[in-house]
Amino acid sequence: MIAVLKHGVSESQAENLINWIKAQDVDVHLSEGQYQTVIGLIGDTTKIDIDLLASLEIIESVTRISEPFKSANRKFHPDDTVVDINGIKVGGGNFQIIAGPCSIESPEQITEVARAVKEAGATLLRGGAFKPRTSPYDFQGLKGEGLELLLHAKEQTGMPIVTEIMNANHLPMFEHVDVIQVGARNMQNFELLKELGRTKKVILLKRGLANTMKELLMSAEYIMAGGNENIILCERGVRTFETYTRNTLDLAAVPMLKELTHLPVVVDPSHATGLSRLVKPMSLAAAACGADGLMIEVHNNPQKALCDGAQSLTPEQFRDVVSAVNKIRAVVKEL
Amino acid sequence: MIAVLKHGVSESQAENLINWIKAQDVDVHLSEGQYQTVIGLIGDTTKIDIDLLASLEIIESVTRISEPFKSANRKFHPDDTVVDINGIKVGGGNFQIIAGPCSIESPEQITEVARAVKEAGATLLRGGAFKPRTSPYDFQGLKGEGLELLLHAKEQTGMPIVTEIMNANHLPMFEHVDVIQVGARNMQNFELLKELGRTKKVILLKRGLANTMKELLMSAEYIMAGGNENIILCERGVRTFETYTRNTLDLAAVPMLKELTHLPVVVDPSHATGLSRLVKPMSLAAAACGADGLMIEVHNNPQKALCDGAQSLTPEQFRDVVSAVNKIRAVVKEL
Amino acid sequence: MIAVLKHGVSESQAENLINWIKAQDVDVHLSEGQYQTVIGLIGDTTKIDIDLLASLEIIESVTRISEPFKSANRKFHPDDTVVDINGIKVGGGNFQIIAGPCSIESPEQITEVARAVKEAGATLLRGGAFKPRTSPYDFQGLKGEGLELLLHAKEQTGMPIVTEIMNANHLPMFEHVDVIQVGARNMQNFELLKELGRTKKVILLKRGLANTMKELLMSAEYIMAGGNENIILCERGVRTFETYTRNTLDLAAVPMLKELTHLPVVVDPSHATGLSRLVKPMSLAAAACGADGLMIEVHNNPQKALCDGAQSLTPEQFRDVVSAVNKIRAVVKEL
Amino acid sequence: MIAVLKHGVSESQAENLINWIKAQDVDVHLSEGQYQTVIGLIGDTTKIDIDLLASLEIIESVTRISEPFKSANRKFHPDDTVVDINGIKVGGGNFQIIAGPCSIESPEQITEVARAVKEAGATLLRGGAFKPRTSPYDFQGLKGEGLELLLHAKEQTGMPIVTEIMNANHLPMFEHVDVIQVGARNMQNFELLKELGRTKKVILLKRGLANTMKELLMSAEYIMAGGNENIILCERGVRTFETYTRNTLDLAAVPMLKELTHLPVVVDPSHATGLSRLVKPMSLAAAACGADGLMIEVHNNPQKALCDGAQSLTPEQFRDVVSAVNKIRAVVKEL
Repeated sequence: MIAVLKHGVSESQAENLINWIKAQDVDVHLSEGQYQTVIGLIGDTTKIDIDLLASLEIIESVTRISEPFKSANRKFHPDDTVVDINGIKVGGGNFQIIAGPCSIESPEQITEVARAVKEAGATLLRGGAFKPRTSPYDFQGLKGEGLELLLHAKEQTGMPIVTEIMNANHLPMFEHVDVIQVGARNMQNFELLKELGRTKKVILLKRGLANTMKELLMSAEYIMAGGNENIILCERGVRTFETYTRNTLDLAAVPMLKELTHLPVVVDPSHATGLSRLVKPMSLAAAACGADGLMIEVHNNPQKALCDGAQSLTPEQFRDVVSAVNKIRAVVKEL
Repeated sequence: MIAVLKHGVSESQAENLINWIKAQDVDVHLSEGQYQTVIGLIGDTTKIDIDLLASLEIIESVTRISEPFKSANRKFHPDDTVVDINGIKVGGGNFQIIAGPCSIESPEQITEVARAVKEAGATLLRGGAFKPRTSPYDFQGLKGEGLELLLHAKEQTGMPIVTEIMNANHLPMFEHVDVIQVGARNMQNFELLKELGRTKKVILLKRGLANTMKELLMSAEYIMAGGNENIILCERGVRTFETYTRNTLDLAAVPMLKELTHLPVVVDPSHATGLSRLVKPMSLAAAACGADGLMIEVHNNPQKALCDGAQSLTPEQFRDVVSAVNKIRAVVKEL
Repeated sequence: MIAVLKHGVSESQAENLINWIKAQDVDVHLSEGQYQTVIGLIGDTTKIDIDLLASLEIIESVTRISEPFKSANRKFHPDDTVVDINGIKVGGGNFQIIAGPCSIESPEQITEVARAVKEAGATLLRGGAFKPRTSPYDFQGLKGEGLELLLHAKEQTGMPIVTEIMNANHLPMFEHVDVIQVGARNMQNFELLKELGRTKKVILLKRGLANTMKELLMSAEYIMAGGNENIILCERGVRTFETYTRNTLDLAAVPMLKELTHLPVVVDPSHATGLSRLVKPMSLAAAACGADGLMIEVHNNPQKALCDGAQSLTPEQFRDVVSAVNKIRAVVKEL
Repeated sequence: MIAVLKHGVSESQAENLINWIKAQDVDVHLSEGQYQTVIGLIGDTTKIDIDLLASLEIIESVTRISEPFKSANRKFHPDDTVVDINGIKVGGGNFQIIAGPCSIESPEQITEVARAVKEAGATLLRGGAFKPRTSPYDFQGLKGEGLELLLHAKEQTGMPIVTEIMNANHLPMFEHVDVIQVGARNMQNFELLKELGRTKKVILLKRGLANTMKELLMSAEYIMAGGNENIILCERGVRTFETYTRNTLDLAAVPMLKELTHLPVVVDPSHATGLSRLVKPMSLAAAACGADGLMIEVHNNPQKALCDGAQSLTPEQFRDVVSAVNKIRAVVKEL
């Protein structure tokens, strides 16, 4: 960490600051120039509160040189983490497609979709039982009952399941869930992250609406700090001024995150764009730029026949996407 | 709600859609033009999932005409809500200043700051016991012990207290807390909001990092739907590309929110700007545009003497801000 | 266009509004409900100022149903536009790679890079002579002299050239330039767009830092309204809160724009990310999601050997990108 | 400027870099730590291209310590600049209100509005003759004829006039214009800025849609580098995800800019919010936080009686705003 002092800072002010830094077990390297004084902070600076330091009256600027994340950092763990979900591997060259309906609605619906997506090439089944909704008046999911239906579909198809948790108190209900999803709105629900860090469950951690990659990695770090290193990161679009698409999918985050961390990175083109007709091109793009997997919404609900254009694909459309993605993957693996 | 069909939609597709809408107890008014067909949805459309509707292949666009929030809506509740905190009133012309340290650190610190801010004109005491931090390695607050210290300061000074909750399971510890704060990162932690809706506590609900005013009101609606109408909204800056300030304080949200809702709106200039020297001008601006109160960080920690420029003010600086704000308030009340 | 009146608007207010609309040669279809009145505006509503309408006291909301762009709209021109640059075609299945240095620096530099990129598979040569720089103290390009060097490189290699214009008064100097680039900062320099609309030059129009796709298409419309339909759109990243990458590349804009317009869409991964090591994955992703071409920075400057990681690739790295992109393209063409 | 080298950079690489820096007349101070090497760049670093440096493979991070703006920098010019417009002073404690219609429409309209706003307390008259519009089909202003009408209103009322320029070629027409406005969309039209730098006209420079304060100051620097120091900065809202207001007014930019620069800063609440009913509270807030003036839209057009809620105020509403602003100003001056 490098701190630059403002012009005109007195010696005693600088000394106070240096003593305060040293009191936190961090060494100091002082470099005095004609116009400015630069303080290098050497050692374990993860404990230094950079916001506090930057806000001091005598400080011109602070730059953190080493990333504030450690367990998730590729520098200290150069090899790709391969997350193993009942034998289904994600990361380290292993690419998986998670598919299923946005919400679990009935035993027939979830089981039918499960069979259809499995047959089309999905290896993990997703389905929402607890649904985070902006409005308290919108459907909040079938909750516990939905989980039961999802577990039933798992039994019927043998597919490991992925579903979202919204409350750490629900963890006992998630005992047989294979991958626990943390949604975008809970990415910085630190209490939830800490609880998940105490489990050994695989966690699918979605990037928040307006969170930086660094913050995503710091949230992963919360889970890892508790001892759970089974984490899959998920890029699902960020909020911008653009309105044609629901969010702005940040695909450059895929190679950038993979440079910064050893954790696998998957992409959710359904939520990112909010438009089913953009799911295919964005799935291909995600596969092309090195994602370790995809999470795609697929429905199979006659009541929704009219919702043909929702962010969910029909099973036939999904099959087409899987086939195309596999062709791109075949090229990418040879590059 | 107005839905516009795409050009070329068949009659049977339109009929399917209309039946689906009617099945949700919403009436339909059809208007067929030469180039487009417009469907008016009449009745209680809060149950209609606008995202789903908008995403249908046959839909060109959907506009929600009535706001999706009801309990918080000024249309149905024209008079200002006045929140009463042990006799301290917020809203309806009552302006209050909440002040205190970012984190509770020791009995001396919190009690000293409490006395200092009370003497300077603050009417509510704030202090963080549970601290949401981006990094798991940063100080997470004194937690339960911090709450005890805050309660002690309340006893000593008679000031009602405001402090942040991060986990609904902690609610029993908050029994004697007067105002429970929901932080920006938990604004869409819907499980927490629901739990708070079941209490009768006053809730200070902060706007999320990248949340719209409508989403803030929908989060208030979650609490109100549970029966708790004691809510104070707080504008604390949103995330943009600007880097000189920590966030971008959206002061136009003050009069805009007050037009949309009857709930009181306070402003937190300390977190919004991250710079103590901007707290005074932004406090004056907030008072000038009609805010119902301010939440300001004040420290009194000799160890932080060097942190003169942090987002926290010294008690002397705070006294100066209060005095200036009162002068602006005196003018505003006469306008 | 659909305008919804506020509750409680008087008949005479509504009548005034309707007369004002009709005075602009737009028909009105009125639909009065119990709670609200909806006005459908029928006919050529491109002349109606939607901002003005939306801001009227009596208006609840306005929705534009038909897009405000006409010449660029795929609805009225379903077939892909194929832009022809001296026989090099862009769009309609024709994919081209534009490559070259950020700035033209010397005759040797530009000619050497031109030869290298041509040999590696680029079909168009780019190079900056007039450079828009945030700071007046930064290098502003070789200007006219740079253009001369670029034209010389064109002669030597036979490659058509692409270079940025910053001032309509410079147009005479661009006589032998094949493609005139409008940079992100000039996307809404309407005076420049109008001048370019009066030429027959191929225009490469870059999306602005914080401009929506609709605004990009409206800027294309400025050029087309003048009679010049030779336009290539370029996605180059938008400004967000993320800092690891220079901008946030919005690849969903590629299929979305191609749905909205018949104009070709290319992607500039070099400026979008600012990091040479992200150029390859983002080029592959752009090719995978249907872009009509790429614009990539390549340098060949021994002085910059140390700048290995700049946003520019070396010719060897570029050759590798071209080869990989071609493999992805081969798959995409068969999908 | 401080550059931090990546771990593992070889001595020869570091030496190459240092030689390259020194070749630009900048001295180097090397500080080698156990984990990292830090290079301090000493001297006039405004010529160093920070983007280029930051993008080098061997560089971990670069921090600019001294701001890249010089002429606009308060450090080198501690006293407030007072801009004098025919005796009307802006800055250094002088507060002015600019008012007038969005567009000049007729001789009667502009003269009537001019008289009305003068009588209400405005000291400068604004009116648009050249209008930047997103759509080529929207009204583009009366252009030269509009300027004539504005000059006529100036003659009639004696008020200095403010109007926007969109093309440097129009400068001869602006001979008798007192203040030339550069609109948000042209804030980085560097060719226009350079031309304006060659004049002695007062320039009102508006912040761009998504530009940082630093970029605004760099654009001022373009004008000042040409020798013209008569600049007034204008905050007019930035683009965010919020939709209730047209833009997000960044009032913290007022005290922040006034700390960074000696130039006066005014606020445009009309464009910032797009809603006339927010103009008053935002004007009061701007005055309270230290703005040097306001720019407010006022109309006086019977045809627009129905547009009561547009972003323009009626003369009566404007009079009320001026009176309230003056009361706030009276308090602020005494603080």
